[in-house]
Amino acid sequence: MSRYVISLGGNALGKTADEQKRLLVHVAKAIYPLIEMNHDIVIVHGNGPQVGMINLAFSESSSTPDMPFPECGAMSQGYIGYHIQNAIYNMMQQRHQVRPISTVVTQVLVDEKDLAFKHLTKPIGSFYSEIEAQALEKSQGYTMVEDSGRGYRRVIASPKPIDIIEKESISRLLEHQHIVIAAGGGGIPVVIREGHLVGIDAVIDKDYASAKMAEIIKADELIILTAVDHVYLDFNKPSQRALKKVTVAELKEYLKDEHFKKGSMLPKIEAAIAFVESTHKPAVIASLEFASEAFKQMSGTVIMP
Amino acid sequence: MSRYVISLGGNALGKTADEQKRLLVHVAKAIYPLIEMNHDIVIVHGNGPQVGMINLAFSESSSTPDMPFPECGAMSQGYIGYHIQNAIYNMMQQRHQVRPISTVVTQVLVDEKDLAFKHLTKPIGSFYSEIEAQALEKSQGYTMVEDSGRGYRRVIASPKPIDIIEKESISRLLEHQHIVIAAGGGGIPVVIREGHLVGIDAVIDKDYASAKMAEIIKADELIILTAVDHVYLDFNKPSQRALKKVTVAELKEYLKDEHFKKGSMLPKIEAAIAFVESTHKPAVIASLEFASEAFKQMSGTVIMP
Repeated sequence: MSRYVISLGGNALGKTADEQKRLLVHVAKAIYPLIEMNHDIVIVHGNGPQVGMINLAFSESSSTPDMPFPECGAMSQGYIGYHIQNAIYNMMQQRHQVRPISTVVTQVLVDEKDLAFKHLTKPIGSFYSEIEAQALEKSQGYTMVEDSGRGYRRVIASPKPIDIIEKESISRLLEHQHIVIAAGGGGIPVVIREGHLVGIDAVIDKDYASAKMAEIIKADELIILTAVDHVYLDFNKPSQRALKKVTVAELKEYLKDEHFKKGSMLPKIEAAIAFVESTHKPAVIASLEFASEAFKQMSGTVIMP
Repeated sequence: MSRYVISLGGNALGKTADEQKRLLVHVAKAIYPLIEMNHDIVIVHGNGPQVGMINLAFSESSSTPDMPFPECGAMSQGYIGYHIQNAIYNMMQQRHQVRPISTVVTQVLVDEKDLAFKHLTKPIGSFYSEIEAQALEKSQGYTMVEDSGRGYRRVIASPKPIDIIEKESISRLLEHQHIVIAAGGGGIPVVIREGHLVGIDAVIDKDYASAKMAEIIKADELIILTAVDHVYLDFNKPSQRALKKVTVAELKEYLKDEHFKKGSMLPKIEAAIAFVESTHKPAVIASLEFASEAFKQMSGTVIMP
């Protein structure tokens, strides 16, 4: 019996509650092989589209207050966590192998001195005109940037995760063979101010959070499920080639040569390297579609120490 | 060391994220005596104003889809749970006694044959004009009723809780002396259809859910915290008198005489009776303000077998 952290992209979850429920039936099927073999499992999901939707609903609605980002993240953990635990529970019932499963609302500690708070990079929420953007900069203190010709968006920090506040609850549940959904959306970002945990406007990359989770709960393997079946060199070029097995040292060379796209494959690779380097255990980046093969390291890109 | 379920009203949590955070500092202080004495604690919170706000944000916003009620409930569990676990964590840090605390996203089973689904009683969400209400009845299949002269509102079922799906996760955490926040808003209501758990538009009363929780996790006492310091007979009349200690048999006589207000004190009393009758343990209905006295049964109304 091994211990796995599975990182699941928010884009795999659709745009509405109904779509999310339908898509999660496939996700549940895809990860069922690990459940069936009684492995310890923590699922960390993304929440990009969902947290944006929640934030937008509050900002567009005229009778509700604006909702700060940490609270939107907490809402997304409830919303997505409920659907994941429901889908996997139903899948297990159908196959007569029921293990307890639940979602732990998770705060993730970041450092207010993280350079990410000086250099804001993560665009979130709605698009605004230049004039609206300037008004928001003045009234709310937001930093607004032009985003790919589509208008202005708020950017917030994307700091590195340092610790998982609810790690003991997650560990205790794992010890009892419960399946745990945690650190959804990378976790609710909190910093320490005067000895208190305080929510902060930021987005923690869910792959980094998965790597930190895998390190803390002493996972045997980190599995990052995404839309492509392998990590590719020269992606989308005629010279494109899939990586099957690769060492951290090799991967670092490819990193230097800028093979991987920022905001897409790059954070997954950096997260995988962080886990493999700190634990000397393997990480796999694979597609959700071929997850069952990836669990046997027969699909995807296996990253070795 | 005893095991407690604390039921906390959604009205004690304010209308905005900031207000909720401020108010929860007081809640954390109020229940700290139980934490300090190392008792097992499950906190079940209400979500009336919060789930209404979430539902309204999505229905008013023009670019987001409408959000079904079970999903709004799940979001409210993340939102409120995060703030409660954060507030209590900070309180414990300050007093140098740290116990793990976390929120478990909780589905609560109800029966689709519950008469509540025939006789819808729970008004939720925004107010509409008569014409808008008729349009919604046609287009969405909603049941709309006139609410106290303020306009038309959707009504949904308020069925009784039968089981708590995540009870094993909650129990395991309690065994390890973790503080658990669960079944927020009465839980996400689910029914069984063709062997599957399916979310359903309904609101489970959080006091009934607390009583069911207390029964399932074998609590020694159910504590319902509210805005009044006792249960009163002839409430708001010159003959008003507080109940200090009362047996279930006595309370049932008062129920017959219609001493208690529907949608307010009545569900608390019915929930307390349900717990005391099924377990032969006491329940206390008390004010948040005098919680520490209530924990010693020195304030509030103690309901005995």
